[in-house]
Amino acid sequence: MSQLPSSAPAVRAIDVIRRKRDGLELSRHEIEAFLNAYTQGDIPDYQVSAWLMAVVLRGMTRPETAALTDAMLRSGEVLDFSSIAARKVDKHSTGGVGDKTSLVLAPLAAAAGVAVPMISGRGLGHTGGTLDKLEAIPGFNVNLPVAEFRRVLDACGCAMIGQTAEIAPADGKLYALRDVTGTVESPYLICASIMSKKLAEGIDALVLDVKTGSGAFMKNEKDAAFLAELMVETGERMGKQVVALITDMDQPLGNMIGNALEVVEVIEVLRGAGPQDLRELCLELAGWMLHLGGVAKTVSDGKRQSTRLISSGAALDKFRRMVELQGGDLGTIDDSKKLPQARHSMPVTSASAGRVMAMQCEQIGAACVILGGGRERKEDSVDPSVGVVLHKKVGDRVDAGELLATIYYNDESRAQRARRLIEQSCEIGVALAPKRPLVHRIIGKSGDKH
Amino acid sequence: MSQLPSSAPAVRAIDVIRRKRDGLELSRHEIEAFLNAYTQGDIPDYQVSAWLMAVVLRGMTRPETAALTDAMLRSGEVLDFSSIAARKVDKHSTGGVGDKTSLVLAPLAAAAGVAVPMISGRGLGHTGGTLDKLEAIPGFNVNLPVAEFRRVLDACGCAMIGQTAEIAPADGKLYALRDVTGTVESPYLICASIMSKKLAEGIDALVLDVKTGSGAFMKNEKDAAFLAELMVETGERMGKQVVALITDMDQPLGNMIGNALEVVEVIEVLRGAGPQDLRELCLELAGWMLHLGGVAKTVSDGKRQSTRLISSGAALDKFRRMVELQGGDLGTIDDSKKLPQARHSMPVTSASAGRVMAMQCEQIGAACVILGGGRERKEDSVDPSVGVVLHKKVGDRVDAGELLATIYYNDESRAQRARRLIEQSCEIGVALAPKRPLVHRIIGKSGDKH
Repeated sequence: MSQLPSSAPAVRAIDVIRRKRDGLELSRHEIEAFLNAYTQGDIPDYQVSAWLMAVVLRGMTRPETAALTDAMLRSGEVLDFSSIAARKVDKHSTGGVGDKTSLVLAPLAAAAGVAVPMISGRGLGHTGGTLDKLEAIPGFNVNLPVAEFRRVLDACGCAMIGQTAEIAPADGKLYALRDVTGTVESPYLICASIMSKKLAEGIDALVLDVKTGSGAFMKNEKDAAFLAELMVETGERMGKQVVALITDMDQPLGNMIGNALEVVEVIEVLRGAGPQDLRELCLELAGWMLHLGGVAKTVSDGKRQSTRLISSGAALDKFRRMVELQGGDLGTIDDSKKLPQARHSMPVTSASAGRVMAMQCEQIGAACVILGGGRERKEDSVDPSVGVVLHKKVGDRVDAGELLATIYYNDESRAQRARRLIEQSCEIGVALAPKRPLVHRIIGKSGDKH
Repeated sequence: MSQLPSSAPAVRAIDVIRRKRDGLELSRHEIEAFLNAYTQGDIPDYQVSAWLMAVVLRGMTRPETAALTDAMLRSGEVLDFSSIAARKVDKHSTGGVGDKTSLVLAPLAAAAGVAVPMISGRGLGHTGGTLDKLEAIPGFNVNLPVAEFRRVLDACGCAMIGQTAEIAPADGKLYALRDVTGTVESPYLICASIMSKKLAEGIDALVLDVKTGSGAFMKNEKDAAFLAELMVETGERMGKQVVALITDMDQPLGNMIGNALEVVEVIEVLRGAGPQDLRELCLELAGWMLHLGGVAKTVSDGKRQSTRLISSGAALDKFRRMVELQGGDLGTIDDSKKLPQARHSMPVTSASAGRVMAMQCEQIGAACVILGGGRERKEDSVDPSVGVVLHKKVGDRVDAGELLATIYYNDESRAQRARRLIEQSCEIGVALAPKRPLVHRIIGKSGDKH
């Protein structure tokens, strides 16, 4: 029951825990003092984990959520890119299967004149991570120090790195504790974790892609919308322009899942091809980034500009430039065979004829993890070459014995397990599959400027 | 996320936390494995404190509460007094101000032929503790090893000691964690803590005195009754006879508060005198102990026997014998001046005339702590000589300037603070004070044998 150091009235950890337990609202000062003391090692994990559980079960008010986000943000360095004239805009996704939009969006928005300082994460559980995908490109360095990050951003308008020790260190400490104490699943804590890191990037605006469906953390749209509203309001309270798109993750995005495979699909989209759903979502998100970045009057205008920047090759050129500046092998862009290749492939066929009614998207993500393409624990390493290519998506007709997917693998027994999982995850029926929209809702004040 | 050692299916700490967080019922096996792993140091405090907070906010089912109690009980030694022919009965109070009934009841029930192996606690916060009262008798040793405890019990039918390291060690470890993580206030955890220790005493039956009112932990009767029912049902599930009396703690019990002063009042009651409320509650609780102890057919018969054992001096003789066997100075029993004496006394008078309408009982307990007679923290030491003697109780008439209480003290400034607190705590009015019963309710199957 130590006193927390502070110039304002003393805050006791036990009182902060008790007040949250009893459902009372904590003051900004209490939250700041509690979090700062924890980051500095002045209060022990066991008090903070009790508090975290109280937050999970009691929730937080909007001012509390903003205060926590702000305290976490200010636990480390806040990047200052004010010397760059362009508006700084980032995009963040809550995670899904086959979601490789970041790799398209950063160069695409940069090609339009928006600056994109993007700090991303690694894959965990059934979802993939942007850093793992970038590292499938031999030589690509995601561990740039802040000065180098700034240099790449200055030189080409976008840069993509991983979390650094300087940015929101409180989040790293808190997340490690949440992970082992059953306190990950709180929209308030998820919001503070995401927004503290994103707002430390020195951005002016943020486009959030909040996934919903069987492959998302938020399985139902209500939970996704709640988290989206929370993040938008928290960002706005902190003076940023924030918009959130609730988008579909009831089946994988695009056709390719697996790190090198996803880079292949990204390059396809940047060449004006690629699967329709991925292309459409990239244009939608890019439209918002360009609009909030001040280079497009409306989102529709942003989408039109983005389409042109892809057709002209400007977006792909920007991607090429970023890969070069971050040390990646440029040869992979023109010849996908230079990306890591799995040694074997195995077909997954349909047992019956009909239509693909649904896909258990989380299971398809899990199949990729089983192949070695993702990680169950943070410390696991990832095999960039393995993955799954889907030949059918929800709504497609399929004959008995026809190819549903191809598995790319290096280990036969893992491939067999992955195959069974994919077979189970694809539901074949005879009715018409229910059609889900790609973008379910748009949340945020900026939403009316569509 | 370590695996908990067990012969049955592996239990992961994180799953136990998550399931409780989500309001699911834990199995006996899960609770046992979790608690045992914690006691053995195999899972860290920060996981257990998150689980404790989930228990506080989600509650527990009756089977869960019994499983936790049982696991805590079996974390240490369970005393075996089966060689003693008499039935073993104990009494436990949830704590109050001026509650010295244990010192009367142990010798009184023993005089009737019931064996009373009583393990008690120390005072904490505004409430007093039996061990502190016993230690006001110079030489009285409450730290007997188990073998010596058994010897005293054999020799005189009752023995009173403090918690030993062998009894329910899980409770000690868990309580220390609850104390600093805001997780004390859960009836389920309170029940498991109390009942695990009591049932480890090797008793056949237990009389619970659950206090309610301004001086109790449970301020309202609903909360007190809930805890009482929980403890009775938990004890019965574990094969013991348990009855709970919800008794009044809206004003101090008896007139004396403070360790040596309370010994004086105990001896008064054992001599057939003493204040009416204390005498009445002692007889009521003794009636139950004798009834459950098999020496009285009904509670009324138990009360009658108790009255006779006091009149005959047999109860006081038993007290004398116990004090002697536990090393206490027998001279104090015949001459209260041999008990620790405060150096000074100070009157507290009424500012107005009328009736005592109410007493803020917790504040009167706090006044005694301020004088040095109780402890705010476990590590504080206690001055046995100080305390408060009340000359008026709720309902009594008082004139302006008439004595309400006398403070016995060793430190002038502390006495002044205590005086102000007592003045504030006594409400003087002109209406008739609402009359509260001494025993509010009786809970337990045995309750119909009154």
